[in-house]
Amino acid sequence: MKRIKCKVAYDGTFFNGFQIQPKGRTIQAEIEKGLQKLHKGTQVKIYASGRTDTFVHAKGQVFHFDTLMDIPLERWHNAIQTVLPSDIEVLEVNEVSIEFHSRFDVVSKEYRYFVQRGRRMDVFRRHYRYFYPYQLSIENMVQASNQLIGTHDFTSFCSAKTDKEDKVRTIYSIEIIEKEDELEFRFVGDGFLRNMVRILVGTLLEVGRGRRQPEEILNVLDSKDRERAGHTAPGHGLFLWEVNYDN
Amino acid sequence: MKRIKCKVAYDGTFFNGFQIQPKGRTIQAEIEKGLQKLHKGTQVKIYASGRTDTFVHAKGQVFHFDTLMDIPLERWHNAIQTVLPSDIEVLEVNEVSIEFHSRFDVVSKEYRYFVQRGRRMDVFRRHYRYFYPYQLSIENMVQASNQLIGTHDFTSFCSAKTDKEDKVRTIYSIEIIEKEDELEFRFVGDGFLRNMVRILVGTLLEVGRGRRQPEEILNVLDSKDRERAGHTAPGHGLFLWEVNYDN
Repeated sequence: MKRIKCKVAYDGTFFNGFQIQPKGRTIQAEIEKGLQKLHKGTQVKIYASGRTDTFVHAKGQVFHFDTLMDIPLERWHNAIQTVLPSDIEVLEVNEVSIEFHSRFDVVSKEYRYFVQRGRRMDVFRRHYRYFYPYQLSIENMVQASNQLIGTHDFTSFCSAKTDKEDKVRTIYSIEIIEKEDELEFRFVGDGFLRNMVRILVGTLLEVGRGRRQPEEILNVLDSKDRERAGHTAPGHGLFLWEVNYDN
Repeated sequence: MKRIKCKVAYDGTFFNGFQIQPKGRTIQAEIEKGLQKLHKGTQVKIYASGRTDTFVHAKGQVFHFDTLMDIPLERWHNAIQTVLPSDIEVLEVNEVSIEFHSRFDVVSKEYRYFVQRGRRMDVFRRHYRYFYPYQLSIENMVQASNQLIGTHDFTSFCSAKTDKEDKVRTIYSIEIIEKEDELEFRFVGDGFLRNMVRILVGTLLEVGRGRRQPEEILNVLDSKDRERAGHTAPGHGLFLWEVNYDN
């Protein structure tokens, strides 16, 4: 038996999120269906680094699966791509040790969130950028984001629907980059709770708009109360950018 | 009665082209439906600079319509946007003379065509770029394109389905621009026949790939035979970029 690690990009627009659901098209279901075809009808279960929500995209999601198929490594890439739909793209395929686990072995993850500013929503970016047509103080947003870096209990920035008990996570860095009419947020951390990046972005945007003071952030963290943080920015501006492992 | 000139962008992905069809969602139908709603049920017919095919996008399509509604000019923009779907964006609204006609008064048009190169198709560009993973000689393509500039009978570069008798058109300029892993074609001319830009691009790409010699182009033009030109590049790489009028 071989364990195969696979890195994919996907356009989340036409998916009902990553995880298999009773209804709706999901990324996991499409990949497992494709692999089952490749394995001549044998079911293949995949294990991903984590889920992504409805409309959320990936530039570097990672999953693994086990196989008895004897395909040379260099052929796996095309073999998998052939059985996937056009909105899932295989980026890399590797054979890994049978000990490797896509979720448990994650060392860090990077998420990026993109905002389109300006007066009118650009039709060509409507599925990939959160349109937020307000004046923003980047300085205040950076000041607020600096208080989020480090190890904190992120209960206030987590959806109540989470199944995780431990809400302590470490954010290694937050960058806020202005590019033409866009704002790009880059979050690197050891892990992120459900909706965490989207609530962080929603809250930082409210700071940028002047609806909250940058100093408030520490109080919000301390309160451990989701009601105290800002709105959940929509899924379609979010990209799971990279998942890092030790080797 | 007032004549209103309106400039719009649209993402052609989910449209069955511009012109109203018995079946399928079209840009004209969506706009006329919206304007009818705005006019409290009265039908409003629009006249565009020309049609665009299925999957073809626009960054600057122009149409006009006549109205008895007494809306101040500065309110028209939002009034129209409100009744349009999210994949059609109003860019500009002007009141024009009752003599103005969006199609007959066109002085020149610009189309741009985008190609994605490289080994793998990028999922995020699949609806907006023609994926063409072949080695290309840009030099040969430029040489071939230079022979297309000027006034010619473009019968060889026109779909048989056209309803136009006169196939003589003038191309003012063709630019071919390399940008990272993309190739961008810019065509400016006094008008373009059905599928003309797509057949020009298909033929130029075949020259770039070495399947045709640059010198062949004049023979293809002379032959007045669609069979002699190259393939029709797909609609989703094409953008109606700008329509120019005298005033």
